[in-house]
Amino acid sequence: MERILTLKGLNNALRKKPNAKKAIVVDSNTYNYCLSVLLSKVDALHEAMILEIGVGEKNKTIDTYMSIVKELAKEGFDRHSQLVALGGGVVTDIVGFVGSSYKRGIDTYMIPTTTLAMVDASIGGKNALNIGETKNQIGFVRFPKIVCIDTSFLETLPARQKQNGAVEMMKTALIADRALFYEMIEHSPVEIGENESFIRQCMKIKRDIVRLDPFDLSMRQKLNFGHTIGHAIESISIKQGIDMLHGEAVAIGMLYAIELSKDMPVDQKNIVKKYITEHFDTALDKYDMNELTNYMNADKKNSCGKYNFVLLKEIGESIYGQEVSKEQLKRILNFKNQEV
Amino acid sequence: MERILTLKGLNNALRKKPNAKKAIVVDSNTYNYCLSVLLSKVDALHEAMILEIGVGEKNKTIDTYMSIVKELAKEGFDRHSQLVALGGGVVTDIVGFVGSSYKRGIDTYMIPTTTLAMVDASIGGKNALNIGETKNQIGFVRFPKIVCIDTSFLETLPARQKQNGAVEMMKTALIADRALFYEMIEHSPVEIGENESFIRQCMKIKRDIVRLDPFDLSMRQKLNFGHTIGHAIESISIKQGIDMLHGEAVAIGMLYAIELSKDMPVDQKNIVKKYITEHFDTALDKYDMNELTNYMNADKKNSCGKYNFVLLKEIGESIYGQEVSKEQLKRILNFKNQEV
Repeated sequence: MERILTLKGLNNALRKKPNAKKAIVVDSNTYNYCLSVLLSKVDALHEAMILEIGVGEKNKTIDTYMSIVKELAKEGFDRHSQLVALGGGVVTDIVGFVGSSYKRGIDTYMIPTTTLAMVDASIGGKNALNIGETKNQIGFVRFPKIVCIDTSFLETLPARQKQNGAVEMMKTALIADRALFYEMIEHSPVEIGENESFIRQCMKIKRDIVRLDPFDLSMRQKLNFGHTIGHAIESISIKQGIDMLHGEAVAIGMLYAIELSKDMPVDQKNIVKKYITEHFDTALDKYDMNELTNYMNADKKNSCGKYNFVLLKEIGESIYGQEVSKEQLKRILNFKNQEV
Repeated sequence: MERILTLKGLNNALRKKPNAKKAIVVDSNTYNYCLSVLLSKVDALHEAMILEIGVGEKNKTIDTYMSIVKELAKEGFDRHSQLVALGGGVVTDIVGFVGSSYKRGIDTYMIPTTTLAMVDASIGGKNALNIGETKNQIGFVRFPKIVCIDTSFLETLPARQKQNGAVEMMKTALIADRALFYEMIEHSPVEIGENESFIRQCMKIKRDIVRLDPFDLSMRQKLNFGHTIGHAIESISIKQGIDMLHGEAVAIGMLYAIELSKDMPVDQKNIVKKYITEHFDTALDKYDMNELTNYMNADKKNSCGKYNFVLLKEIGESIYGQEVSKEQLKRILNFKNQEV
């Protein structure tokens, strides 16, 4: 499993291998706003090669991957080299994919600079690339050596990105920690997404779940709450050119997953639905329902024609591996769609 | 670890999941010569999708990989689907790479149809793709579910391909089994490469080594005997358009690795060198020495400017992690080059 350290801890770890070649992967945002902070705190990276990629999900492709691999090969990086990710989930996913495969695996160090990457992408070892418009079609489970948390990177993060991360934090609380969820919704999503205590609690919950099931065979699936529909919406958005962040899509996905959660008490459903609809745009009318289900059929967690959902029993308690038929899903989506 | 079974055993295993989508990856040769044999013996594969790739190392690319992944995605293959490789090392490597990454991993079944793939590529879980002319730059260690051995596939294999596999078999004996090596060199390389008893002994030796060190941290490195120089020669050959098989390159690599093996008794050295030079073309004069060392610098097993060799103490006993400097290597290569 990954160790969670400060930047100082990272510096000490990297110093132990002064001869290993090092590279830092950034995107244009973290190149501008975060790289100088990192270099001022981690002198072991002063000589590192800087590799810059484009901003956003559309760059999480095999082409970006190949450009990095070719650059590493050109510069003579060997299997003892070290690769640092400084950025959000796109950067950590690409670095994870490169680290899993280059020379059959090199050490990676994740420095998430967004709320979402802190609580989600950097923890748990999963990485992936998109194929066309379908998200995360190829990838691996492989743990980085170290994940660094430094919330000072959040100071330059736009409010919308904090909200984006807050959705994954709410998800984490909803599946595993009732008290944390009720504490969270006293605050706005932006406040949730910059709260260091909430962030650390969510990282801890995720790490504890992953520790028990690193390869996603059982309870790790709980972390997919809201993602079955959420991923499909996110994929269609990329294709249609709709400006939609991962968390914004998952917020919608959570709303419908709660609708499908038959055992959940209605008063609890209403608390969650009220918070989500008040703070997020949950209208589905811009999406073609057939296209939505086509994308869901490509989701790697579905099997033999049924959709695999995580549902809630109550706030803070979830059950994974719940089969939902295409008919059930269509009914819920159409119903909500008309209502909204 | 992989299970080693007959085609009948494979059929029984595949029958247990009748609803899982299945695909068989073949190249043009195995499509013509092996597929009908496979389908006649394994009825569980009658409905499988057939994916055909081009013959040879030059197809072991990210483009071939992407074409397979896109086809699987288009046909709705999910994480419970099953992928069968019917072919030599190129096919098993690509299937291994796809199986490692598609939907973060699906089950693979290897049916090697060449001597080389039987004794080498299909055992031990390593897979890889080439980047440009540099071999095996990216890849993973992940075990297939089942490896099937059926030497009837060797009946249509050209003699040169049997020789090709025989080199890896000789390598296996040289690093770990003295008696087996002496028994082998009573025969021609072609005879070695079609001998079922020799093949099974070599598979067993490799599997026992891999079992103790699956991730190549220590003794598994012994299997790289002859490969440090061998891979470089193979890479240059691809680039220069020289018709050179993996085993033919490794034969040369073994010759020079023996030259570098200071502790090996001279009479034993001569026995091995005599057999190799009598049966293989070991001339290096068609290669630019600088280009050779450039390629070796890109080898993933080298670190911090030194070459990492496996050397022999005697026939049947090897030591891994032996550092060789650039100067030492140049001296040996030039000396041999002039001599030949």
